[in-house]
Amino acid sequence: MEEITIRYLGPGPKEISAPILIEGLPGIGHVGKLVAEHMIHELGARKIVEIESIFFPPQVIIQENGTVRLANNEIYLYDGKDCRILFLVGDFQSTSAEGHYLLADAFLSIAEDLGVSRIYTLGGYGVGHLVEVPRVLGVVNQETLRDQIEAAGAVISPDEPGGGIIGAAGLMLGLGKSRGMEGICLMGETSGYLVDPKSAAGVLDVLCTLLGLRIDATTLQQRGMEMEHMIQKLVDTERATENDELRYIV
Amino acid sequence: MEEITIRYLGPGPKEISAPILIEGLPGIGHVGKLVAEHMIHELGARKIVEIESIFFPPQVIIQENGTVRLANNEIYLYDGKDCRILFLVGDFQSTSAEGHYLLADAFLSIAEDLGVSRIYTLGGYGVGHLVEVPRVLGVVNQETLRDQIEAAGAVISPDEPGGGIIGAAGLMLGLGKSRGMEGICLMGETSGYLVDPKSAAGVLDVLCTLLGLRIDATTLQQRGMEMEHMIQKLVDTERATENDELRYIV
Amino acid sequence: MEEITIRYLGPGPKEISAPILIEGLPGIGHVGKLVAEHMIHELGARKIVEIESIFFPPQVIIQENGTVRLANNEIYLYDGKDCRILFLVGDFQSTSAEGHYLLADAFLSIAEDLGVSRIYTLGGYGVGHLVEVPRVLGVVNQETLRDQIEAAGAVISPDEPGGGIIGAAGLMLGLGKSRGMEGICLMGETSGYLVDPKSAAGVLDVLCTLLGLRIDATTLQQRGMEMEHMIQKLVDTERATENDELRYIV
Amino acid sequence: MEEITIRYLGPGPKEISAPILIEGLPGIGHVGKLVAEHMIHELGARKIVEIESIFFPPQVIIQENGTVRLANNEIYLYDGKDCRILFLVGDFQSTSAEGHYLLADAFLSIAEDLGVSRIYTLGGYGVGHLVEVPRVLGVVNQETLRDQIEAAGAVISPDEPGGGIIGAAGLMLGLGKSRGMEGICLMGETSGYLVDPKSAAGVLDVLCTLLGLRIDATTLQQRGMEMEHMIQKLVDTERATENDELRYIV
Repeated sequence: MEEITIRYLGPGPKEISAPILIEGLPGIGHVGKLVAEHMIHELGARKIVEIESIFFPPQVIIQENGTVRLANNEIYLYDGKDCRILFLVGDFQSTSAEGHYLLADAFLSIAEDLGVSRIYTLGGYGVGHLVEVPRVLGVVNQETLRDQIEAAGAVISPDEPGGGIIGAAGLMLGLGKSRGMEGICLMGETSGYLVDPKSAAGVLDVLCTLLGLRIDATTLQQRGMEMEHMIQKLVDTERATENDELRYIV
Repeated sequence: MEEITIRYLGPGPKEISAPILIEGLPGIGHVGKLVAEHMIHELGARKIVEIESIFFPPQVIIQENGTVRLANNEIYLYDGKDCRILFLVGDFQSTSAEGHYLLADAFLSIAEDLGVSRIYTLGGYGVGHLVEVPRVLGVVNQETLRDQIEAAGAVISPDEPGGGIIGAAGLMLGLGKSRGMEGICLMGETSGYLVDPKSAAGVLDVLCTLLGLRIDATTLQQRGMEMEHMIQKLVDTERATENDELRYIV
Repeated sequence: MEEITIRYLGPGPKEISAPILIEGLPGIGHVGKLVAEHMIHELGARKIVEIESIFFPPQVIIQENGTVRLANNEIYLYDGKDCRILFLVGDFQSTSAEGHYLLADAFLSIAEDLGVSRIYTLGGYGVGHLVEVPRVLGVVNQETLRDQIEAAGAVISPDEPGGGIIGAAGLMLGLGKSRGMEGICLMGETSGYLVDPKSAAGVLDVLCTLLGLRIDATTLQQRGMEMEHMIQKLVDTERATENDELRYIV
Repeated sequence: MEEITIRYLGPGPKEISAPILIEGLPGIGHVGKLVAEHMIHELGARKIVEIESIFFPPQVIIQENGTVRLANNEIYLYDGKDCRILFLVGDFQSTSAEGHYLLADAFLSIAEDLGVSRIYTLGGYGVGHLVEVPRVLGVVNQETLRDQIEAAGAVISPDEPGGGIIGAAGLMLGLGKSRGMEGICLMGETSGYLVDPKSAAGVLDVLCTLLGLRIDATTLQQRGMEMEHMIQKLVDTERATENDELRYIV
């Protein structure tokens, strides 16, 4: 058994060509995952590659029809009139530090095979508290890319995130650099405690500007508003309880 | 030293042929282990393969005669008139995520060598509370198998288990799929806190229907009833204590 | 760098021959380590092999003269008139499960190269409370060895230790079996909380009977008595404190 | 992808030659890191090698200009009139025990390629309490080096550190020994709780004496004094609070 198994579902790597890959694997606030899955859905991208690995958790996922499939990562292709985009999404990232490196390297090899010259990695930037108006932080792997992302609305703040960027979102930029690939990481500010569609909507906005694409963000924004209502209710309930307690004491 | 050592005890793989393998390695509530070991005992299956691995815990087991043997997994063969069945049982599963994959893959290679075309993996589905009438949940690795297991009494519930199936029971289905093997996982509902022979009896019942086999479940049912009595006593004692405490307070 | 490096200090494996190897690596109560190091000292055995490995903790030990050496395992040879014995001792066992297997296998390969046909592994059997008269438990890897160790004073108790034997003491017996080596594990009963020279003295006694050797156990027994005095003082102090507390309450 | 990637930035190994390597990777109190980075800065050493590895944490570091680079280790060269010195510094040490060995071994191979015959490893010796006048402890990998380091002001105390030396600082001495490299480890006494520039200044002093180099330690000493003031303030505040509490109680 290979450490990493790459399976093309239809046409092979020689028949596919796309200049852009967008990574949205699970991470902080599932921000990247929400954006990438939203785009796949809205654009009608289709699955072209399945990646299985001994570095993923040793488990299967139960699908809606009661059948199982291995935990995996997947690549989707949007084959549009004006642009072709690959999406890297999946259930999990690596369970080990070493696996993170080997998987990120394998992702880049696939990207190279498919003609990718620019990679967008998406993620959340956990700040530990609720954020009213989440910023979209950006980092790049080549200085020449700075102006583009700032023009599109991303904030470059060298101190943030202080601890660097962990996992595929960071490694694909770092390892991509020595392969000569352009790399941009967009991170939506988020509490880090909850799945955050509002933060994802912000990232989607900046990303679409960069890609020159129009994608309907309604469902993402709605889910964001639902989350906000839910959180507001929780906060209100807590305050009410606190008031009650005060009354008792008085 | 090999990562995984496979040792045939008597006849080699070319002399053995069985269409079915039943996996019952340790797991939640030891449900799968109980079922497989009960069947081995009742059918008089005999050990034909020992599997040792650096992925098992680094220890030996002390046998009744005071001699030791390495922690291992074992394959038994039931060579019946009408059917031949292999059983995969053992002391432990892998200690590492990577080992889980490599062992499941090795098990499938053995199964292929022995002519297996269908795999049953058995396990428990931990729900976190005592279950009066445990269901038997089923998942499959090919949609065509759904009807069979539902007809045999298994429940297909796509949301359960929510976290997927971890370890050999899941991986053998997932990895078996790409080898073209039919895979069925039967999981007995169980609290997850105790070894659960009652849940095992339920799984055995569904499994026997699927296999068209009759196996005496008396000892399993008796052990299940003993467990229930024991639990009831514990519950009663606790209630009595609570009443005592209330009396003191009053 | 090799995973395991074996370095002969003087004569190579072809020039050394000894039928017996005694393993006394660190473990519960350091019982095995105390026995093996005591024997090395009393018999004047000399170091013949150093084993370094990436599976040991990544550190150096500071020696008395202020120089460092890598954490390692070592083999000593007692080249007596009537008998030749190898001793396997060291600072640590493996940090990983896989490493335990690979190291135990490497130890057995060295043993085979040096003509060893019987292995004694020594350890402690932690019972969780102070033991007045510690038993010496024995397990073997071939049933024919049972009588010998019982005659020498070891107790064979199939239920103990319930969890099997972990680490080199267990694996060398288990892996040695398939190499056709006789294996005997002697475990001194011990609390498991303290280094236990008294338990070690008991193991030494049984081992010397088995080897037909006479070794002065005075220093081991003295250290055992010192430990017992120390423990008794601690117990007395605690009791005194309890009495004081009672007085206050009264 | 290689487990360890070594990249020369300009001239290759055949064009560089330096007899001395100073290791200052992150560790207790960041003492070694502070010393090595201070020397690199004061001497104007330039980066000549980048080392990336799957044993480092899977992350990128965000640089001041908003671009990322992989977490790595780096080698700097000071190419002075009278002496040439290599410095090994970096963001992290290995995340796994095995990786520590493999990286230390790789560092030594680079050092050999560059003509290094003596290695200084720098670190902190954590004592668990604030130290008024921190000693500089020294250990060596060859007894002949003792006099030199004692003459330079290092203290050789065979009992310290009791637990040996963990990580690159220890392994490079231990593994360097069998390559015939002289190895000296200098450890500044430190609480172990804080980054400790004062302890670093002490190590720098001894190291400069050994190297026959003069390096301005002002900035290190100033940072040390600032840290001391900060700590003193914390202690004063705490005492004041305690007094206040006493007053309330009185």
